[in-house]
Amino acid sequence: MGASLGAVPNRRYAILGTGALGGFYGARLQQAGTEVHFLLRSDYEQVQQQGLVIESPEENFTLPQVYAYRRVEEMPRCDVVVVALKSTHNHLLPALLPRVLKEDGVVLVLQNGLGLEAEVAQIVGAERVMGGLCFICSNKVGPGHIRHLDYGAITLGEYAANYQVGGVTERMSQIAQDFTQASISIHLAADLLLARWRKLVWNIPFNGLSVVLNATTDALMADRYTYALAEQLMREVALGAKVQSRAIADNFIQEMLDDTVKMKPYRTSMKIDYDEGRPLEVEAIFGNPLRAAQAAGVQLPQIAMLYQQLKFLSDRTRAQSPEKE
Amino acid sequence: MGASLGAVPNRRYAILGTGALGGFYGARLQQAGTEVHFLLRSDYEQVQQQGLVIESPEENFTLPQVYAYRRVEEMPRCDVVVVALKSTHNHLLPALLPRVLKEDGVVLVLQNGLGLEAEVAQIVGAERVMGGLCFICSNKVGPGHIRHLDYGAITLGEYAANYQVGGVTERMSQIAQDFTQASISIHLAADLLLARWRKLVWNIPFNGLSVVLNATTDALMADRYTYALAEQLMREVALGAKVQSRAIADNFIQEMLDDTVKMKPYRTSMKIDYDEGRPLEVEAIFGNPLRAAQAAGVQLPQIAMLYQQLKFLSDRTRAQSPEKE
Repeated sequence: MGASLGAVPNRRYAILGTGALGGFYGARLQQAGTEVHFLLRSDYEQVQQQGLVIESPEENFTLPQVYAYRRVEEMPRCDVVVVALKSTHNHLLPALLPRVLKEDGVVLVLQNGLGLEAEVAQIVGAERVMGGLCFICSNKVGPGHIRHLDYGAITLGEYAANYQVGGVTERMSQIAQDFTQASISIHLAADLLLARWRKLVWNIPFNGLSVVLNATTDALMADRYTYALAEQLMREVALGAKVQSRAIADNFIQEMLDDTVKMKPYRTSMKIDYDEGRPLEVEAIFGNPLRAAQAAGVQLPQIAMLYQQLKFLSDRTRAQSPEKE
Repeated sequence: MGASLGAVPNRRYAILGTGALGGFYGARLQQAGTEVHFLLRSDYEQVQQQGLVIESPEENFTLPQVYAYRRVEEMPRCDVVVVALKSTHNHLLPALLPRVLKEDGVVLVLQNGLGLEAEVAQIVGAERVMGGLCFICSNKVGPGHIRHLDYGAITLGEYAANYQVGGVTERMSQIAQDFTQASISIHLAADLLLARWRKLVWNIPFNGLSVVLNATTDALMADRYTYALAEQLMREVALGAKVQSRAIADNFIQEMLDDTVKMKPYRTSMKIDYDEGRPLEVEAIFGNPLRAAQAAGVQLPQIAMLYQQLKFLSDRTRAQSPEKE
């Protein structure tokens, strides 16, 4: 059940959240000939009239006409519903997903963090949920205007109840075909939960410390104290993974550190959100992994401290300025 | 040996470091009739010519003439040598203390943090060292110009080799007399190490978090996440104390939290140093307690993380601006 998207020759996509991720991937899919429907909020007028503008080192292009919607009720039901909202807006999903998802369709959760597929499964059922991990540098620089900077690959994985290993299914291959046709690299992961924890190995230390210490990755890696702290935080992530029966090897941690040293100076997505006064995805990236470990009686004291520091900074930012998208 | 400062009717004081603490206490002692000799660096010319200016809610006063010195070689030997330098300058002490301390005199270490008396003992011998913990809000606002804001009490304790309990000695009472005459409250502590750890219960969370999170005490206590974090950090301090056989009760921690909630919004001394681009006393307040615990095989993970964050911020500040006093 739910292993294939059926025999339709052309799968129809919905993009919920037409920002840095959703705008880029959706535009690429449409450019490659796929039918894509975009849900927008504040950018609706602009996109409806002017379309989407994509800057990218690979190719700049404009889609003068897109299917743009302000209300989910006006959208057709889709085979693949891509959730690319900030996870801080996930309280909207119960009102959105049932209206736009085909009976035999699938929701593809492209958000960062842990446990988000389980939340979506409560709305549409576990058999209609997949996760995607985006390895991409991309920003929205204006209404309907996306600047893709680097990378872009997605790791796809099936969700199964309680994050049991989902294996590789027919519909994963079908979605991979659509993205590959749009020149997006796709990796198929048999174990979504393992992929999620592996991504946290990087996201937890660098998203967190970049905000708390007002720093780019190069500065954090050049200082021996924060280098050591990043490594300790990574080991706590591995401990959290172990609690959920997923193994992260020491040499994976060392590779992450080595790769980060070699990277160009990088401002993390959470730091960009913080600098722009936008809500931070603290619960998805920090709170959910902590609670998963605590439920099994395991403390992750340094991740817990980073979580508390981020909550303080995030609460203060929200107290100082009205919420932005 | 070393229990009394001898029969001289008037004890002679040296103040090493004529800043927020040393300037205030030294001026008060002189005003009350005690002979005080001040070692200065950048403020020497000003103080030599204009004296010391003290603003205080208790009494504003000026000492037009003080014994001011630029070089320790010109100072007379003193009964009590007060170390009120920033602990980041303690590498200067081996060149200073032997020149100014009387044979039967005592060094009074007024600095924040742990283990500083042991460093001084290596220079002058354990029997010639005492510690003093200052509970005071005071700033240097200009050359030879000190602004005392609130509080001022000192807890005095004898140092003994390896921080054995030193008891209450005759010379503690003698020094207490001099300060009491100058309207400074003095508490006599039989156990200096316990007093040091108890002070760290407040200093570690609030000095550290105020710098890392750019916050005053009221903001940290008003947010439930940083309130909880401060409490956890206090419990780690208590664990460090326990490693050194000193007990800090749970209700002492609760009192510290309650008192801090009631305090007026307060910018900690480390935050002021950070904002002014001055070196931070990270090793004395964080590094030494951590190493004491680690030497006994006990990890204090959240204090360790705060230490690493502060080292990063401190290193970056020093890289950006030349060292200030």
